[in-house]
Amino acid sequence: MYTNIKQIDSHKCFDGEQLRFEHASSTLNCTMNFSVFLPAQAKNSSVPVLLWLSGLTCTDENFVTKAGAQQYAADYGVAIVTPDTSPRGEGVPDDDNGAYDFGLGAGFYVNATQKPWSEHYKMYDYIVSELPSVVGSELPIDFNRCAILGHSMGGHGALTIALKNPGMFRSVSAFSPICAPSQCAWGEKALGLYLGADKEAWAEYDAVELLGKGKPKEKLPVLVDQGDADNFLADQLKTQLLINAAANADYPMSVRMQAGYDHSYFFVASFIGEHIKFHAKHLL
Amino acid sequence: MYTNIKQIDSHKCFDGEQLRFEHASSTLNCTMNFSVFLPAQAKNSSVPVLLWLSGLTCTDENFVTKAGAQQYAADYGVAIVTPDTSPRGEGVPDDDNGAYDFGLGAGFYVNATQKPWSEHYKMYDYIVSELPSVVGSELPIDFNRCAILGHSMGGHGALTIALKNPGMFRSVSAFSPICAPSQCAWGEKALGLYLGADKEAWAEYDAVELLGKGKPKEKLPVLVDQGDADNFLADQLKTQLLINAAANADYPMSVRMQAGYDHSYFFVASFIGEHIKFHAKHLL
Repeated sequence: MYTNIKQIDSHKCFDGEQLRFEHASSTLNCTMNFSVFLPAQAKNSSVPVLLWLSGLTCTDENFVTKAGAQQYAADYGVAIVTPDTSPRGEGVPDDDNGAYDFGLGAGFYVNATQKPWSEHYKMYDYIVSELPSVVGSELPIDFNRCAILGHSMGGHGALTIALKNPGMFRSVSAFSPICAPSQCAWGEKALGLYLGADKEAWAEYDAVELLGKGKPKEKLPVLVDQGDADNFLADQLKTQLLINAAANADYPMSVRMQAGYDHSYFFVASFIGEHIKFHAKHLL
Repeated sequence: MYTNIKQIDSHKCFDGEQLRFEHASSTLNCTMNFSVFLPAQAKNSSVPVLLWLSGLTCTDENFVTKAGAQQYAADYGVAIVTPDTSPRGEGVPDDDNGAYDFGLGAGFYVNATQKPWSEHYKMYDYIVSELPSVVGSELPIDFNRCAILGHSMGGHGALTIALKNPGMFRSVSAFSPICAPSQCAWGEKALGLYLGADKEAWAEYDAVELLGKGKPKEKLPVLVDQGDADNFLADQLKTQLLINAAANADYPMSVRMQAGYDHSYFFVASFIGEHIKFHAKHLL
């Protein structure tokens, strides 16, 4: 049935299918898993797609089991593709101390240039090129109608990838994104190790820096939700820097502070319906 | 704030609170955790409650993270109380071989009479008496407006507890319940070890046997959903025996076979909204 991917799990879900695959990634130089929700509408024709990027410590499965997104995707008839967050496998180097904020489970959606990371950690190219190509050729999913969204490190990934590739996406959204990785400990560690000391290189993967480079001509609809009871808000996420940078760049963004919500998937679940509705408006 | 329970986790969720507690259970003779979703409506007055019983291998947390139930409970203004599935702790005996179908994570919602199980495994009394009493005295939850529901082993628990205590509940529902534990391997093992060889004792915890004892006078609204692609259907769940027993007892039950669905939480998530709507009709 499939040529270059192998189905490893499937469950009927909201009249569609929650599927899991593995494939040999030439970009990441390892075997990767990814998950796909295919709505029932995909039985008849190819469907638009949401590309979800998860955060630190996650695999492709966290969002699938915890966010409750399938019901909304089923209603609107859009697929959801959820990649893993980093290269995986015995040959893939990890944080020396096994820290959760770097290495396995924390690819940061960049193309590493520094050894030993550069052999595998090419998550930016994987998300932008290989994964859409592989999935689009094997499944009834139309990446010409694609939106991107994510949580935390994945929110950083969604914003930066969309800012750099506006033509690929109809819209972008993020939950609790790391807005300025060059200015927080998680980002400084990851970008320093993956990319080296030159902060010019970091700016390519920093939403605030990308907005600061000039006023982007091609603007996408952007929705960001941030809980104000999020323990990481002040030190790691720094939403206000995004708000300021967007204002300076004349880039309209809907950035909402949600009272009382934290960094967990209970927050994502509470608002994922609104995010999918937002994207559906631009995809359908 | 609380007298006999200790809050160990909390997250804002769908404008309500997803809470987790521990307490010293006198019935089970150990420390137990349970989870509670409190909708925003509970800030103003006590709310009706859904008592959810989980299945084999689960704790109180599986349903909380995987079912996506909070949004519906938030809409209707009902709480959800999710107990653990068995007594826990170092002093609590487990299956000799660590099997998943007995012992820890598999209390079967019975009152064990056989040693060494009888010291802790009193899950029936815990669910029927201690837990509602403790929760009702500490939180704005009204157990006079209570429905019970569950999955698999927890579906068996919901059906048997409701059949034996119709006055306690407004309605009952189950996903993929073990309908006749006296006639399947999971049930024969559990009931034999907890209750001994006398099958008269087993009948008290078997929905098909309880229905066969005579025509219950007090009938509750009953909804059962069963996936027809469930690997456990033929050997362990035996839904047809429930359908037959209900017909013989003149007990109306809505038992729905759902095409293509399996035993997973993807099935529960797909229909939990309909179950909560069903219960809300009787609770509100």
